[in-house]
Amino acid sequence: MKKHNFNAGPSILPQSTIENTAKAILDFNGSGLSLMEISHRAKDFQPVVDEAVALFKELLNIPEGYSVLFLGGGASLEFCMVPFNFLEKKAAYLNTGVWAKKAMKEAKAFGEVVEVASSADANYTFVPKDYTIPADADYFHITTNNTIYGTEIRTDIDSPVPLIADASSDIFSRPMDVSKYVMIYGGAQKNLAPAGLTFVIIKNDALGKVSRYIPTMLNYQTHIDNGSMFNTPPVVPIYAALQTLRWIKEQGGVKEMERRAIEKADLLYNEIDRNKLFVGTANKEDRSLMNICFVMKDEYKDLEADFMKFATERGMVGIKGHRSVGGFRASCYNALPKESVEALVACMQEFEKQH
Amino acid sequence: MKKHNFNAGPSILPQSTIENTAKAILDFNGSGLSLMEISHRAKDFQPVVDEAVALFKELLNIPEGYSVLFLGGGASLEFCMVPFNFLEKKAAYLNTGVWAKKAMKEAKAFGEVVEVASSADANYTFVPKDYTIPADADYFHITTNNTIYGTEIRTDIDSPVPLIADASSDIFSRPMDVSKYVMIYGGAQKNLAPAGLTFVIIKNDALGKVSRYIPTMLNYQTHIDNGSMFNTPPVVPIYAALQTLRWIKEQGGVKEMERRAIEKADLLYNEIDRNKLFVGTANKEDRSLMNICFVMKDEYKDLEADFMKFATERGMVGIKGHRSVGGFRASCYNALPKESVEALVACMQEFEKQH
Repeated sequence: MKKHNFNAGPSILPQSTIENTAKAILDFNGSGLSLMEISHRAKDFQPVVDEAVALFKELLNIPEGYSVLFLGGGASLEFCMVPFNFLEKKAAYLNTGVWAKKAMKEAKAFGEVVEVASSADANYTFVPKDYTIPADADYFHITTNNTIYGTEIRTDIDSPVPLIADASSDIFSRPMDVSKYVMIYGGAQKNLAPAGLTFVIIKNDALGKVSRYIPTMLNYQTHIDNGSMFNTPPVVPIYAALQTLRWIKEQGGVKEMERRAIEKADLLYNEIDRNKLFVGTANKEDRSLMNICFVMKDEYKDLEADFMKFATERGMVGIKGHRSVGGFRASCYNALPKESVEALVACMQEFEKQH
Repeated sequence: MKKHNFNAGPSILPQSTIENTAKAILDFNGSGLSLMEISHRAKDFQPVVDEAVALFKELLNIPEGYSVLFLGGGASLEFCMVPFNFLEKKAAYLNTGVWAKKAMKEAKAFGEVVEVASSADANYTFVPKDYTIPADADYFHITTNNTIYGTEIRTDIDSPVPLIADASSDIFSRPMDVSKYVMIYGGAQKNLAPAGLTFVIIKNDALGKVSRYIPTMLNYQTHIDNGSMFNTPPVVPIYAALQTLRWIKEQGGVKEMERRAIEKADLLYNEIDRNKLFVGTANKEDRSLMNICFVMKDEYKDLEADFMKFATERGMVGIKGHRSVGGFRASCYNALPKESVEALVACMQEFEKQH
């Protein structure tokens, strides 16, 4: 049976990423060696890193003066690296969910943290819009997409202070105006690569403004100066990321990714809004294109387990909602084909007919 | 042409690790999904982590009261995590090479660092043995194998204070008395897995003795409490590590790995000592079984490039010595077959005959 992979992350990747990575693990570039057993300093691996950096810059139209880094540790490690590198006195955070909160928690050990707004009281069902960013903050931190709650900031906001974004779960899903940010970072395991890789897009001259000592590995300058090769980087995930970046380019770039994301999201949100059994959990204007969260309407709540079984039997994978929202979550990352969304919609319609 | 992979790291892995990982990337456990696109919290991935932890404990005979962690970031990140978690006032380090020095450098930001001994003046050609570990040090840090210089500490030393070892490049190459250490850590990319995974063996009750705040991701307690799942761990490298651990067990465990390592090292060191062209760089009593470093004797120095070409043409890969030692380095990790060492020895003999 055909599986429809709605996993929230690690999640579906392009078939070419999967096949090419498997091939390279058996034989990298016809070298007779596995991708897993070559040196990261081998002369045929450097072009992999170089091309991945170049495609990042090309696809996101990254201006001069920015570096692209490939690191380990995950976005969670960035939560403390960001204040380590940027927080001298005060930082501003927008609290839009669990990940924003975790980022904020780490920052508190480094200086004053101002929560400019929060939707915690509404279980993060919306993205706050009326807030004031303190003009004396060292930076303003946002989470562009809230995987758990299915909300998203789909515009590049104007910030009076340096803007830093965790874009773990919606990077490469739309064109971004990178010049509005001093840093964009994320775990690669949604739209890019398998788990174990963190990407960082960073404005070089935004660094060097804190007075504290920064441990070498936590200092972005280290990784800029060494082209992500200060220590051994995650070779296999970087190779996989390159395959995905090539795929995005071949498919038409981030503009086309956005067109498809809108098309898929419209299909599913329209069905959620139409179907008598289901209701979306996020405020309509803040709905994420990446993670589509919905529950059974109150009067049908006792059918949730049944629908989960029904959909699973029809090949849907990973549609269980996060425990803090409940219900269902269909993650529709770049690599998810429209057919999978159509299959889920068909499930919802068929199930509705039975009840 | 058959390649003989003497890479220093990332380096040769068992064929079964390579093949099984490639297979799982195409289809994990017959699930119809790639290993790269399943959730780390999927019910069929937890057994992978559990078995890998269990095999760590079994193969290294790890006593009760220790945890095994799988993290990202590499051993270089551990260099600052160790003092973050253990250094309250004073730490002792044995300086046996570049990696030891880097570890020491990070510690200096956290407290007093005592270098108990150093072989820096002799370009790290030996492992210092006469030194006194301060009785009031919070811990004593050693590097068990010095990849660049080809020296190794092959016994589990007695330390009056908690002992911490970076065993990146010789883990699983011999039985260890883990009870003598409070922590053993390393990058996985030598004897275990592809790059992107760090292993940590840690004594649970050794933690909690520093008064500073530790960022969540840098706190070992976080990862112990969450079974390495506080954030998304490097799924593919963990799966590969499991394949290698199974292979080690099937082959007879670490005792057998040690027997083979001694056999391979004897073969190569004997040839280095016999051959009129070559000379070993490390003190004989400290010679590493993992990284075998040698140069051309002074009178034949101008033949180095020729031998490199000669050996490369015969399938030898990765035998160029590190720039700080020069000459050649043959890394003979667990997965390197004896045949590869025999092929290198044959090269050396053939080249000798021609000169």
